[in-house]
Amino acid sequence: MKAQLNELCANEIASAVCAGHLSAEDVMKAHIQRIVSREPDIQALISFDPDRAIRLAQEADQQTKKGRLHGVPFVAKDIIDTVDLPTSWGSPIYSSFQPPRNASCIELLTNAGAILLGKSVTTEFAYFSPGPTRNPHNTDHTPGGSSSGSAAAVADRMASFGLGSQTAGSLTRPAAYCGIFGYKASRGSIDLQGVMGLSPSLDSFGFMARCVDDLILIRMALCGARSTTNGNDTMISDRLAFFRGPHWGMADTYMRNVCFTVAAEIEELGLEVEEIECPVNFFELAEHHATIMAFEVSQARIFEYNKHRNLISDQFNKLMERGLATRRKDYEAAIKARDADIGTFNRIFSGYDAILTPAVGSSAPLGTEGTGDPLFSRIWTLLQLPSISIPFGTDQNKLPLAFQLIGKYKQDADLLTVAHKIETGLNIKCPVPY
Amino acid sequence: MKAQLNELCANEIASAVCAGHLSAEDVMKAHIQRIVSREPDIQALISFDPDRAIRLAQEADQQTKKGRLHGVPFVAKDIIDTVDLPTSWGSPIYSSFQPPRNASCIELLTNAGAILLGKSVTTEFAYFSPGPTRNPHNTDHTPGGSSSGSAAAVADRMASFGLGSQTAGSLTRPAAYCGIFGYKASRGSIDLQGVMGLSPSLDSFGFMARCVDDLILIRMALCGARSTTNGNDTMISDRLAFFRGPHWGMADTYMRNVCFTVAAEIEELGLEVEEIECPVNFFELAEHHATIMAFEVSQARIFEYNKHRNLISDQFNKLMERGLATRRKDYEAAIKARDADIGTFNRIFSGYDAILTPAVGSSAPLGTEGTGDPLFSRIWTLLQLPSISIPFGTDQNKLPLAFQLIGKYKQDADLLTVAHKIETGLNIKCPVPY
Repeated sequence: MKAQLNELCANEIASAVCAGHLSAEDVMKAHIQRIVSREPDIQALISFDPDRAIRLAQEADQQTKKGRLHGVPFVAKDIIDTVDLPTSWGSPIYSSFQPPRNASCIELLTNAGAILLGKSVTTEFAYFSPGPTRNPHNTDHTPGGSSSGSAAAVADRMASFGLGSQTAGSLTRPAAYCGIFGYKASRGSIDLQGVMGLSPSLDSFGFMARCVDDLILIRMALCGARSTTNGNDTMISDRLAFFRGPHWGMADTYMRNVCFTVAAEIEELGLEVEEIECPVNFFELAEHHATIMAFEVSQARIFEYNKHRNLISDQFNKLMERGLATRRKDYEAAIKARDADIGTFNRIFSGYDAILTPAVGSSAPLGTEGTGDPLFSRIWTLLQLPSISIPFGTDQNKLPLAFQLIGKYKQDADLLTVAHKIETGLNIKCPVPY
Repeated sequence: MKAQLNELCANEIASAVCAGHLSAEDVMKAHIQRIVSREPDIQALISFDPDRAIRLAQEADQQTKKGRLHGVPFVAKDIIDTVDLPTSWGSPIYSSFQPPRNASCIELLTNAGAILLGKSVTTEFAYFSPGPTRNPHNTDHTPGGSSSGSAAAVADRMASFGLGSQTAGSLTRPAAYCGIFGYKASRGSIDLQGVMGLSPSLDSFGFMARCVDDLILIRMALCGARSTTNGNDTMISDRLAFFRGPHWGMADTYMRNVCFTVAAEIEELGLEVEEIECPVNFFELAEHHATIMAFEVSQARIFEYNKHRNLISDQFNKLMERGLATRRKDYEAAIKARDADIGTFNRIFSGYDAILTPAVGSSAPLGTEGTGDPLFSRIWTLLQLPSISIPFGTDQNKLPLAFQLIGKYKQDADLLTVAHKIETGLNIKCPVPY
């Protein structure tokens, strides 16, 4: 059976459009059709204008110069400024705000031929208070957050890829819950102009897709990299560290088994997998993360807290209050401890290409009043390291399971190379929600 | 003769308003009167509404809870979002854009009782292409840039303090040219939410005032610091390093003499001043700065370059083109070299409280088609270090001269303490432009 056009990966679409085998318009229409049929249940999008999307696709077909993502429809988390669609930050305060420009990431992807299909639901200010989005694999379950809409739209084949951000576990967690690949870049490696800031020491950019090749293509468009290797020589040693991490005890049996199984299968591919210990001070990392985040959020959102408190959720107001009560001294101490831990970790990590560790503690929890626990991601966000959440089958309820690979700081290209090797070797496919 | 109210420093205004000796309204009116008489010549402000300013001052007088900057009028560089005044980034592209919120710095200062008087002129996108602002000490000369309007307004006693930013030499240079104190904070120590980004690895926040006590007060309002000591114990050793730096040969005789004289006078105060050598690799720093800035600017301003190129100056378009032609590999190498130099510098620097070095190469150059050379500031911006430009007399043309103190990374409170000691000991006053 021929795959529907909306089921193709970004690299397949771009190749076919560039070669003249597919029109961007047909590709777009297939995605719109999928959205029309599924969006009432999934609610992944906050703004979406099918006429605009088709017009842009028609324009893409007219262009003689084709980009490496030509004709590929994508969605962007609604904390990312877009010049022709509103940007609300998941808050009623900004429900009708129309930015006067595109964020750099939008512009760079547009340069590469990709077509912004719509804006995807974010939790309020990319924190915990959820939007309406449902998990495409079971609408009684959360898609995760805060990049909820991007994860659900990509998993449900409404869009080829989705942009997101991660300050705690906002990207790799929803990717894991929705059964797709989620890549969070090294902090500071992708321009954040036009992306809402929440906690500048932690805010990281990333994106989700249904294969590693797509992640590599998107990264090239965003980084101005002319190769996948970041301009540096890759230093792949084919050795991975298996790291249970400080929160292993909170992972359920399914997730632990995913990690054990993946480790064993990777070894069968001829890679070495070596278990490493959890250094004691890593137990404190989650607490440092919480201190830094609360303090910085209380500065970044001070305008909204002062002027629109009644339009802010209780959950977010609590975070603000925690931040406002945090002493600068304690914040500075947490930053210092973090910097020391980065050093410790770099030493432990030096002999390995990547760390294999749980992506989340369980499959997507039942209910949509929360977005799940960021415990398994926040320490990696704190350490500023690149990470990829990789789907690995489903549980007895057909909910996706996932593991996570952590790379070295700013060695994102190497991490993607390793992820690609594992994806291919283990024949990993994103589970289809229908 | 009683000083005019617009000649008072911020701490004097706030004390008098809090004690009930002055009304915020009278203070505001004195500043407005000054603006009305001088603005036609100086052109420091891009948006200014006297009725709004008086209304806010009247409201401040009504408030029973007074902040530490209560009733103090300030201006903000027009790259800083303000909810009730437009924000144009010094570009015709955004001439009428009204942001839906305040930048965090505006909100935090408003919390402390300060009153935003108007938006001050910035060069286009905080780069080189100048606005209309003139140097208050001689309107045939540049005020420096990119924080041109803030420097001119504070020097001319139109505002008590002014907010600015520095990516190369955009704050300490205009402060030096205009004869006021200009403080650039350690990169990353003040929240930049709502402040236009230009080159995220370099963008630093800061402000200008007419005494160090004011800088300390403003910093406390912005940092949430409850003391001047940053929460850490101060480690003042009373030892300063005299550092000619790699560009000493480009400083004129006046500026060299300022440094020699200040060094001698500081020694008379009982502080030690020791000359340190210029490490060879520091000659390359300015080049690394240029590479990083061009590359990052070409990502941050890609939307404007793609969509509004005809509204961008030739100078800025050239920077974009340089950035777009810079290979990511070379950019990454410059970042790496910078990080190594930070290490080198920290080692050299460890025994001193601060570095004494030229602030600029000369007094404000004649002409207003340029904004002077950032050579003496950009290496400190690159190294992310806090710096203060301190006025020191005038030359034979009554144009201000200045030296600069550089502090340790994130030890801003210590730097301000040292600057305060020198200001007091040397009885430094900002030259009056009339």
